[in-house]
Amino acid sequence: MRRTVVIKIGGGAGIELAPVLAEIAGMVREGSSVVLVHGGSAELDALSHALGHPPQTITSASGHTSRRTDRRTLEMFEMAYCGKVNKQIVEHLQRGGVDAVGLSGIDGAIWRAERKGAIRAVEEGRTVMIRDDLSGRVTGVNATLLGSLLELGYMPVLTPPALAEGGVAVNVDADRAAAATAAALGADELLLLSNVPGVLRDPADPSSLIRSASEVGAEAVAAAAGGRMKNKVLAAEEALLGGVRRVVIGSANGATPVANARAGAGTVFEGAMA
Amino acid sequence: MRRTVVIKIGGGAGIELAPVLAEIAGMVREGSSVVLVHGGSAELDALSHALGHPPQTITSASGHTSRRTDRRTLEMFEMAYCGKVNKQIVEHLQRGGVDAVGLSGIDGAIWRAERKGAIRAVEEGRTVMIRDDLSGRVTGVNATLLGSLLELGYMPVLTPPALAEGGVAVNVDADRAAAATAAALGADELLLLSNVPGVLRDPADPSSLIRSASEVGAEAVAAAAGGRMKNKVLAAEEALLGGVRRVVIGSANGATPVANARAGAGTVFEGAMA
Repeated sequence: MRRTVVIKIGGGAGIELAPVLAEIAGMVREGSSVVLVHGGSAELDALSHALGHPPQTITSASGHTSRRTDRRTLEMFEMAYCGKVNKQIVEHLQRGGVDAVGLSGIDGAIWRAERKGAIRAVEEGRTVMIRDDLSGRVTGVNATLLGSLLELGYMPVLTPPALAEGGVAVNVDADRAAAATAAALGADELLLLSNVPGVLRDPADPSSLIRSASEVGAEAVAAAAGGRMKNKVLAAEEALLGGVRRVVIGSANGATPVANARAGAGTVFEGAMA
Repeated sequence: MRRTVVIKIGGGAGIELAPVLAEIAGMVREGSSVVLVHGGSAELDALSHALGHPPQTITSASGHTSRRTDRRTLEMFEMAYCGKVNKQIVEHLQRGGVDAVGLSGIDGAIWRAERKGAIRAVEEGRTVMIRDDLSGRVTGVNATLLGSLLELGYMPVLTPPALAEGGVAVNVDADRAAAATAAALGADELLLLSNVPGVLRDPADPSSLIRSASEVGAEAVAAAAGGRMKNKVLAAEEALLGGVRRVVIGSANGATPVANARAGAGTVFEGAMA
């Protein structure tokens, strides 16, 4: 059987796409089925500032922060993620001989989502309820469409938003969407690549990297993972629970980030966790 | 056999999408295969101004004008066409129960293009050669991918750019891309809907509409079609030559623009033209 690998590449500032895309082209040539998932937060931030609607953050009562996604932000989100970044990646892959097909989670309802209900947020010390936020979390994946595309020889390049009940597009976490995708496809591997080397016990110290999540255990990993890393660890655990054999949270930088991650550079999650 | 209809909806200012999309949802429910092609020029113009890189026009030696598409413009083009407009349409269709899949011409190389060579342009009275323009014209359609999507029950929603030799994304005319698509799919009908009622002998006089292109003949139609209408007439002729039975250039406005065009409101092209 063909090996299926889902690779998520972050949308943070300073990530160079060319090396990752060259490695992916090599994997596809060698017969692997690859699905690429990407973000676009740095592009969205830049566009939001340029268009005079700067990024806003929601801080929940528990201290968790997320992007405030009103209708205008969703439009800019689609311009940055589905327009600029997605088509830039597809063009790059096509130039390298890979027949890439760029899709968002709303296309063919590839990612079904549950929209967040009212969010209890803290603004200037006061608790407020936000009811119109267009965000949610992926609850289902159209593996039939993705499987058909792979079968026909295409490489899906996926990006949020996802499709919530009533046909509403919502912002979802791309790491967890990638995890749901890997589980739905029965993927062998999920690589979550971004501008951090993995889960660090001390975010300021790269030598504090947790190399094997399975060895240190879920609690120690959760304790080390703050901020955006929390979602990556959640994604890794969701993928394992969904039957993915191996997940690596690793760096998107360097000449061969995919090979490095596959060789175990980063934080490796294997088998079911406690 | 299922009826296949390709509908192109313009991206000009003031076109309301909701009525067209509601009609399309009805056609899909009744069992027709529909492919929607759209533009986004008004959105691109607005974005270009907002981002400080206003639209520029190339005027050829023969007086033909087209959009100057440098790399920065192409990025904004993809944000407007593939990001904002495409995903807005897909979300709207999904909300109406249509399983739409939004794709650009570079995805799966749906539209292969020939890139324009050097363009001899006139700038402030002087002739200059423009060699870096990212524009071209569609020369091939991936009917296999489109056919598979239709077969699986999805409705393709297509937009430029297209993919030129060497994997370069290029701006192409969406009317002619729609014509090539209709021909490649062996479509029964092609509807080109925009903010004009059809080919007018006098652009200022709606009552000068040419109702049947076949009756008045190709020369009379060509003589009447100036500016952007030229491309629509070319598109109509290319579709007929490619085996499409019927093409209507009509208005995208009103409560039932699709039904109106199918009933013959606009300029109708049928059979091979002289």
